[in-house]
Amino acid sequence: MAHRRELLFWGWGYADQHLLPQEETLLRELVSTVGGGATAVTAPRLDEFALPAPRGKPPAALAGLFSSSVYDRLTHAYGKSFADGVRMLQRAVARPPDWVVFPKNEDQLEMLLEWADISGAALIPFGGGTSVCGGVESAVEGDYSLVVSVDLQYFNRVLEVDPVSRAALIEGGALGPELETALRPHNLTLRHFPQSFQFSTLGGWIATRAGGHYATQYTHIEDFVESIRTLTPSGLMESRRLPGSGAGPSPDRLVVGSEGTLGFITRAWLRVQDRPRFRASASIRFGDMAAACAAVRAISQAALFPSNCRLLDPLEAMLNGVGDGRNAVLVLAFESADHPLDAWLARALELVADHGGRWDADAAERSLHSSETDQNQAQHRQGTAGAWRNQFLRAPYYRNYLTPRGVIADTFETAITWDRFDNFYTGIKDAVSRAIRRETGVDGMLSCRFTHVYPDGPAPYFTFYARGTDSGDMPAMLSRWRQIKLAANTAVTELGGTITHHHAVGRDHRPGGYDQQAPALFRAAFAGAREVLDPRGMMNPGVLIDTPARGATGGGILLS
Amino acid sequence: MAHRRELLFWGWGYADQHLLPQEETLLRELVSTVGGGATAVTAPRLDEFALPAPRGKPPAALAGLFSSSVYDRLTHAYGKSFADGVRMLQRAVARPPDWVVFPKNEDQLEMLLEWADISGAALIPFGGGTSVCGGVESAVEGDYSLVVSVDLQYFNRVLEVDPVSRAALIEGGALGPELETALRPHNLTLRHFPQSFQFSTLGGWIATRAGGHYATQYTHIEDFVESIRTLTPSGLMESRRLPGSGAGPSPDRLVVGSEGTLGFITRAWLRVQDRPRFRASASIRFGDMAAACAAVRAISQAALFPSNCRLLDPLEAMLNGVGDGRNAVLVLAFESADHPLDAWLARALELVADHGGRWDADAAERSLHSSETDQNQAQHRQGTAGAWRNQFLRAPYYRNYLTPRGVIADTFETAITWDRFDNFYTGIKDAVSRAIRRETGVDGMLSCRFTHVYPDGPAPYFTFYARGTDSGDMPAMLSRWRQIKLAANTAVTELGGTITHHHAVGRDHRPGGYDQQAPALFRAAFAGAREVLDPRGMMNPGVLIDTPARGATGGGILLS
Repeated sequence: MAHRRELLFWGWGYADQHLLPQEETLLRELVSTVGGGATAVTAPRLDEFALPAPRGKPPAALAGLFSSSVYDRLTHAYGKSFADGVRMLQRAVARPPDWVVFPKNEDQLEMLLEWADISGAALIPFGGGTSVCGGVESAVEGDYSLVVSVDLQYFNRVLEVDPVSRAALIEGGALGPELETALRPHNLTLRHFPQSFQFSTLGGWIATRAGGHYATQYTHIEDFVESIRTLTPSGLMESRRLPGSGAGPSPDRLVVGSEGTLGFITRAWLRVQDRPRFRASASIRFGDMAAACAAVRAISQAALFPSNCRLLDPLEAMLNGVGDGRNAVLVLAFESADHPLDAWLARALELVADHGGRWDADAAERSLHSSETDQNQAQHRQGTAGAWRNQFLRAPYYRNYLTPRGVIADTFETAITWDRFDNFYTGIKDAVSRAIRRETGVDGMLSCRFTHVYPDGPAPYFTFYARGTDSGDMPAMLSRWRQIKLAANTAVTELGGTITHHHAVGRDHRPGGYDQQAPALFRAAFAGAREVLDPRGMMNPGVLIDTPARGATGGGILLS
Repeated sequence: MAHRRELLFWGWGYADQHLLPQEETLLRELVSTVGGGATAVTAPRLDEFALPAPRGKPPAALAGLFSSSVYDRLTHAYGKSFADGVRMLQRAVARPPDWVVFPKNEDQLEMLLEWADISGAALIPFGGGTSVCGGVESAVEGDYSLVVSVDLQYFNRVLEVDPVSRAALIEGGALGPELETALRPHNLTLRHFPQSFQFSTLGGWIATRAGGHYATQYTHIEDFVESIRTLTPSGLMESRRLPGSGAGPSPDRLVVGSEGTLGFITRAWLRVQDRPRFRASASIRFGDMAAACAAVRAISQAALFPSNCRLLDPLEAMLNGVGDGRNAVLVLAFESADHPLDAWLARALELVADHGGRWDADAAERSLHSSETDQNQAQHRQGTAGAWRNQFLRAPYYRNYLTPRGVIADTFETAITWDRFDNFYTGIKDAVSRAIRRETGVDGMLSCRFTHVYPDGPAPYFTFYARGTDSGDMPAMLSRWRQIKLAANTAVTELGGTITHHHAVGRDHRPGGYDQQAPALFRAAFAGAREVLDPRGMMNPGVLIDTPARGATGGGILLS
């Protein structure tokens, strides 16, 4: 049914992708350090799952687009969180979607919405399915007669390119590589590279306020959004292409972050950019995390807008093979399609020097002068930044190795203003380390990097490893993870951060997190808006807000 | 009652502010060119207005904060649009606010909201009252027992400054100069300078998505907003201070642009900046508007982020005394608190040269080298940029001279993507010029500048002058203006622009504009959200959307 390369239904990435020998060596060492099982729980096979028979019957006109194959139902039952992997290893998926549907155009989506309205179905918009927070889960609460996962993979075209305004009209189901491939002949790029880039879609990025790889300036997908076309249960809502506007609250900002609860994002105009030609970079060591933070703060407040300003704390640097565990490391880089970056890098390095950073001056100099050829691009891919990027895209695969071996490996991310960062960083490390010890009986590892930096604060990204089980006891590991996750949510929220800077809310970030963070009246107001667009609450119920029970409020009251 | 310097109740600015002789000479010439009356309608006096007796009775506990003086009622009856001035000159204000109230704290605001709910009053949040689109008008439709304008001028403090994150907690009623004065000792600035800067407030800026003076990067007030505290009829809604977030749709973005329909913005955390120390600028002539546009587009897409990139079309340049009517003029400037701007200016001038721009290279060079002293600041104030700024702040006063003399002088502003700009610019000039001829019988003048530029398009700002009446016939002039305004709204909207880039919607931008531009479903969804926050529709009814008739929908249904 699907037209795409087969994905690993129980873990991250392509089914035919394997770890490299050196990755496996590294991970083996990690397991022995953190403490997991001697043997791995074996990878599940499709025939090990006994799924309940699908409820309901597809509408005749769309029947050819529906699938109830085990592969389709399993790959659409969960996202790609740690918990999702563990549950797959348990071979127990109690409530997969009854059906997965692969519509090919808006007419079919409209028919689907009409059918769902009549038949009482819940619909789950499904882009790449890479949610790490329970954002596409099929086991929804509420009085729905069946649950259908709506896979938008056929909405994968770049429909129009406007090279003058540098914008492109892109369908919501386009994967990162699909849209970049279509933009490349125009020498354009969206330049939005989340870690899930290969497997996630434009519509998913918009629905979840995804963050890209670049550290400043254009951090979230909404910074690129010029207009959005959303097909809601109440009809089509399409904003106007505008470079800027002051006409009422932004229509796009209602949809951005709505996580599938308002409708399907079928297409959007995105601001794209010329492909970078000039680069400059340096890798900087700091003996002291506080000094490193001060340097990053100075850079972030200097309006220099580095493309990368990724501070790794000492442990994170060591785990990434760029430090000895004593130094913090700042990966600093600039990119431009327009001009050489000598002045930008020079000023940033002055600021770095002011705060005691040390770097290889020759390498920084070389980074400037090998910048204008294709060869340089290849060099760039092989340098520190390139190594980082490979590691960045490979990292999610590591969980496929670690989870079966009983290691809890997870991340959480946030943002906080600079004035509170020191206290926040210490507080998070304390709270999560304590939770790990309490739940697992031994110490884990917790490291931090900044993924994005703003003039008023950084976006810290935490990675932790903890002993989940040494006996293949997946349910026990899952329950330990839940407690650690809840402790992380609570600490982040109580210490003043946001429950997510770019991973979205889904289900997993509600308890202890979003439900406390978001102003209660705002959540009620958002529910009021949703009530208009999706009166029956059929769209992705349970993420972000509680969906009113079916029939409890009636529909369309505000339109009447 | 008010604690501020007296304002001219029927026109722009301070009551004791007068035109300079050279300004008067210039304006006299303009009247004779455009064609107005030989004599001016005399300025109205307060005692010429017979206002209806105020309806209702203030609540006893707040009675001391209420005023029904003629001055207070008149200064709160309208904003400062062209139509508002004409109507004042007619000495006829049929429906002023019954009362003006000057609350001093949130407790009083809360009591006011409770009283309004019981008494059936409509409340109009009033900041500086500088709306040019009918945003604070007291003559509201609907079943309200009385109308109260709520002046927030006592909410004028900077409550807290966080120099580390560079942010400040500022009350909603603080005028531009008030908040800048409070930030200056910290060497900080909000650096948001709308043309109304002296008379408008932070809360007003947020409610209307105001645009500042700077051309790129941080164009609208929302770019600076870290969090907002809004007192709604349903209670307090306060977002969290965060440098960035991906947790659901942004709560702040619901309030930004809500134009007083959701509640009172009592305070907000704003990102502030170090005061600029380095400057660079050039004034560039282009023989051809298309080449000038291409140059501006190249600069806007180069990620150089000039503070000023103000392109004046040939007529606009001439009217501003910086051109001969044949050349377009680009006022280009960079500012930084952190670093010299040589590389930035040099690259921008390369782009300018690529498109045939000409400039005084010595002056550009000098702009770089006189930058680090206080003396330079004084020079800066006196140079081209300084002259521009003075003119910018003085211009609204000119209408005090022109309107009584029968000249229609007005502006409208928008944004449009680059690919459509040529067609848009021609189309707007055609449509508005035709409307002026049709309504007034003679040609007017219509000029254009870019106030802001984005990578995907400019924000063109149009100024027009037309013969309104040569016999002091204010009603006739008003009706001519209405037709021209409607033609402008319609042309902007039909040609694909936004009805406002930074002046807001109010009432005047609804017909032919916002009502067509905003997606119908979005407007319904916004109404759904508002229904939760302001169930009775008491807050500034009539702007942005139609307010449901009182009692028609019941309240709080979604909270129950």
